[in-house]
Amino acid sequence: MAAKKKSTKTKASATKPTEPLSALLRLPSGPVDLSAIDTAATPGYPGAGKADAPALTEALTPELSELQERLYANGRSEVEGAPSVLVLLQGMDTSGKGGVIRHAMGLVDPQGIQLTSFKVPTPEERKHHYLWRIRRALPKPGMIGIFDRSQYEDVLVVRVEQLVPVSEWNGRYDEINDFEKKAAEAGTTIIKCFLHVSFAEQKERLTARLASPAKYWKYNPRDVDARAKWPAYQEAYTDALERCNTDHAPWFVIPADRKWYRNWAVAQLLREHLIGLDLSWPEATFDVAAEKARVAKS
Amino acid sequence: MAAKKKSTKTKASATKPTEPLSALLRLPSGPVDLSAIDTAATPGYPGAGKADAPALTEALTPELSELQERLYANGRSEVEGAPSVLVLLQGMDTSGKGGVIRHAMGLVDPQGIQLTSFKVPTPEERKHHYLWRIRRALPKPGMIGIFDRSQYEDVLVVRVEQLVPVSEWNGRYDEINDFEKKAAEAGTTIIKCFLHVSFAEQKERLTARLASPAKYWKYNPRDVDARAKWPAYQEAYTDALERCNTDHAPWFVIPADRKWYRNWAVAQLLREHLIGLDLSWPEATFDVAAEKARVAKS
Repeated sequence: MAAKKKSTKTKASATKPTEPLSALLRLPSGPVDLSAIDTAATPGYPGAGKADAPALTEALTPELSELQERLYANGRSEVEGAPSVLVLLQGMDTSGKGGVIRHAMGLVDPQGIQLTSFKVPTPEERKHHYLWRIRRALPKPGMIGIFDRSQYEDVLVVRVEQLVPVSEWNGRYDEINDFEKKAAEAGTTIIKCFLHVSFAEQKERLTARLASPAKYWKYNPRDVDARAKWPAYQEAYTDALERCNTDHAPWFVIPADRKWYRNWAVAQLLREHLIGLDLSWPEATFDVAAEKARVAKS
Repeated sequence: MAAKKKSTKTKASATKPTEPLSALLRLPSGPVDLSAIDTAATPGYPGAGKADAPALTEALTPELSELQERLYANGRSEVEGAPSVLVLLQGMDTSGKGGVIRHAMGLVDPQGIQLTSFKVPTPEERKHHYLWRIRRALPKPGMIGIFDRSQYEDVLVVRVEQLVPVSEWNGRYDEINDFEKKAAEAGTTIIKCFLHVSFAEQKERLTARLASPAKYWKYNPRDVDARAKWPAYQEAYTDALERCNTDHAPWFVIPADRKWYRNWAVAQLLREHLIGLDLSWPEATFDVAAEKARVAKS
């Protein structure tokens, strides 16, 4: 483990906030009031504003790259109990789940990423328990899983659209907590990110999608239907955040009105959690001296 | 289609070789002599040497990013006959399949990538025809598929290690050509890349893996066993290149002794093929004016 500190040191001190971002964005336990959390804030951001963001995010790349490779190496070498990481993204339409994947998760080697986008369940998925498809998508040892939407849809859209009775969705919070606890115990570090966007900002983004033919494909008329139910969704999010905010799978609330902050913040959260794993390179599973001799002779 | 030329123009003219790289690296039809193709060459490289490579490769990002998004948009919008792209990577151990994925494919949005690494077939895969797992992994419309190894293993390792009789593998070249033809006709642009590394360079890379504990995980004693059969593998590659070099799925031979050239070259090949698709943004599938009014009122 000693080698780790040396090789994962931060290149630019500017990328290191004074307090870990994980602490700043971690949702405190207890009652949640989303309206009291500023969607345009930039907690822990080390730059002056938007202009610095590409360079600050880019500056994370070499370190993220090495940390990810170390995680991957542990998975590949079938080290017993090799860990994995899961970045779970939730948020209202236009909050930027896709943008985070493109700009933050895109910083790491695609070989180390296991991305799953959860859509409306397929007929096959519908035959199973709602956690069936989630369990199958959990990251394998050494991998960084990304969930674009997740099990939380089953207490969000399912609740707001009344797709199942109250008694049914109401039991899911505890079930999700149990599920996440088991995943954490099996070695998955879970980083749940709620991308917190304002009602006004959503309107601007929907408007922008309709203003450019290059963005039409991102627009879905159903997003406006969901927007009409904004208070019901905020209430459902509030419950999901409050009832599923555990130590083994905490929620982080990412102010998401500023895309540049949001992308930097998720990359930085990933960095801090990877550092927290404190991984060494795996030991050789062969006789190094003997193999050196074989290669030399070859 | 008119909008395309404007928005995909190259940012840095230095990234544009005088002749398309696809033409320079395309394996000519007819007999193949791998020993006559320089593994350390840098055809079409617009820089002076290694020092320029990170900037030249990085300079491709904005354009690759837009081209990939356009492809993805066409897939997402379920445009009839939406295309896909397949980058197929083959090469001896240490030739850099992983490096290409990390450094070249890593330039595009992970949401648009469908990566499959073909290992020794699983018991499940073994129950099926050797093309079964390949067919399942073909990229969906709008996606860039990456094959890390491929159907060619079934005429390479299978042939050299005599895992099936000659009569069996000998029929596979035509079968693979048919398979690729169908995939191409269904809308997949196939870019087959042979990463051409020298016997001497492989030795250096294996030696380097044994010199650093951070690289032990990349080392596999079996790689030296395969190295001992180098001539048999070169012969098998020669046949695969010669007999499966078709217009619908041509081979590109990438000199791979210089990692920086190899990574730039594959990114550049991808760029040229994406430009070749000449894609427009998909039409709106809704009434734009009506939706603008809905959003404005929301």
